[in-house]
Amino acid sequence: MDEFSFIEYLRKKIRTAGRVRVGIGDDAAALGIGKGKQLVVSTDVIVENVDFNRKALSPEKIGRKALAINLSDIAAMGATPVAFVISIGKPAYITTVWLKHFYKGLLALTKQCDVPCIGGDFSRSKEFFASITIFGEAAPDQIIKRSGAKPGDWIAVTGFLGGSLLGHHCDFTPRIREGLFLAQHVTPSAMIDISDGLVQDLEHILKASGVGAVIDLDKVPVSRDAKKMSSGNKKKALSRALSDGEDFELLFTASPKKKKILEKIWKKKFPKAPLTWIGKIEGKNPVIRWMRHGKVVKAPKLSQKGFSHF
Amino acid sequence: MDEFSFIEYLRKKIRTAGRVRVGIGDDAAALGIGKGKQLVVSTDVIVENVDFNRKALSPEKIGRKALAINLSDIAAMGATPVAFVISIGKPAYITTVWLKHFYKGLLALTKQCDVPCIGGDFSRSKEFFASITIFGEAAPDQIIKRSGAKPGDWIAVTGFLGGSLLGHHCDFTPRIREGLFLAQHVTPSAMIDISDGLVQDLEHILKASGVGAVIDLDKVPVSRDAKKMSSGNKKKALSRALSDGEDFELLFTASPKKKKILEKIWKKKFPKAPLTWIGKIEGKNPVIRWMRHGKVVKAPKLSQKGFSHF
Repeated sequence: MDEFSFIEYLRKKIRTAGRVRVGIGDDAAALGIGKGKQLVVSTDVIVENVDFNRKALSPEKIGRKALAINLSDIAAMGATPVAFVISIGKPAYITTVWLKHFYKGLLALTKQCDVPCIGGDFSRSKEFFASITIFGEAAPDQIIKRSGAKPGDWIAVTGFLGGSLLGHHCDFTPRIREGLFLAQHVTPSAMIDISDGLVQDLEHILKASGVGAVIDLDKVPVSRDAKKMSSGNKKKALSRALSDGEDFELLFTASPKKKKILEKIWKKKFPKAPLTWIGKIEGKNPVIRWMRHGKVVKAPKLSQKGFSHF
Repeated sequence: MDEFSFIEYLRKKIRTAGRVRVGIGDDAAALGIGKGKQLVVSTDVIVENVDFNRKALSPEKIGRKALAINLSDIAAMGATPVAFVISIGKPAYITTVWLKHFYKGLLALTKQCDVPCIGGDFSRSKEFFASITIFGEAAPDQIIKRSGAKPGDWIAVTGFLGGSLLGHHCDFTPRIREGLFLAQHVTPSAMIDISDGLVQDLEHILKASGVGAVIDLDKVPVSRDAKKMSSGNKKKALSRALSDGEDFELLFTASPKKKKILEKIWKKKFPKAPLTWIGKIEGKNPVIRWMRHGKVVKAPKLSQKGFSHF
């Protein structure tokens, strides 16, 4: 199957929603954006043997993950995903059969989240890569940045953290509904999705906001997989929850008043995505202080440090 | 210089325009789109040794071209470019010095066209690639697709064609002003930018519109570079003008009434980008008939056939 037949194959597979004015097959796609809404844009590229291993993951899972990580970014802005485009580098050793399975996984999530693919580009390459750019929309006053955390705010996280390597890193459901609910009902002062690990992503918020934080280690929600990977060693499991990465949970800050509102309504609205208040914002120095059993303790060991692509 | 220092370096280099609500450094960027306007989106990826050769082109030129080809797509929709995001695959052998020069070329065009970079992503890779997604806006009734050509329409092309390999392929100025002017003043029935060569891109219009065309070979505007590359052989030069590719000129169709309007105003408005009427749309069979000295002739030889990335 050559490039043009494959694009034709995709064109038939891909349904276009009502707001797509021009879909696949022109110089560009065209999209209606809601009146008074702002466009939210995020881009993420995954490269073979850097971000995933073709031997360890099925093409369906890789395709799904390529889109899911982008949806998670849109969720972290409190926005509604609208559509996406995808550019693919295809080495000769990648068959169109493999590529069809990649798209199968990706398009299944497309349907689930009602986010159409509206365009893309193919190129030959030495290794497989997929670069997705996703668009969302939000009311201007409901876009949640990393930079709005204030001393006195509480810090919350959705779900459980750590050990995502056992499966969660590719089968997670992006927290779109939760992010949107938060933006519309309490407008968190800052929000981010946890991709680099709780500590590193919290530090992103602290630096962008020019504030510090105190975290209660007793409160950090450790996942079953983090415990499993630590064979029952609680310290190691906690360390994983703090720094493993690819949890794709939401980490946000909110005033005490907004915390109260959420405590009343969250559990009923999202029974499967528990919300945990793990600490507070304090001071103007972007560092984290740690508490355990009500006492200040030294910084816990982390399972890993950040990853640089350079 | 590591990844985060480089992003910081870029952040300082990149000015953000008034409509950019959230720029580089968050989960996503946010952008205001004009009231009642539609979002136009295009994506293009360039890969080392497939789309360009690092030994033949300076990093500045490669960076400029990566953005210019995307701007050309927006121009072909009759839209105004608004902003773009870029994902880069960086092999270890690409130094940050080289990358700075790549961005220098890209950002110079950014300023020239007033299109800010609002985000991006880096990944390690085996070969250098750059995937750009560009956004534009247009009034819903001024988006020019490939599919609206009608029998009786005239076919026009901007500039001169062929021989782009001598330099035009990377130093061309995207026809943004011309595309926008056409969309707003005469609304062509169909439009495309010539990237695959006149014949192939005209065929894209014919297939999308379900029409045929007759082209007058005497009218095709052959570039000086096409003549130069053909050492004075007129037949070879014409063949290059018909199929060389990467001209990034606009090819469009318009009714006889609109042709008259353009004949009156075009030269004054765009003295440096001549408009040439090379033929007409006829019938419903998506093939091209050829004329020379007022007589039907057989299809001319082409310099090359299309390129498949699969």
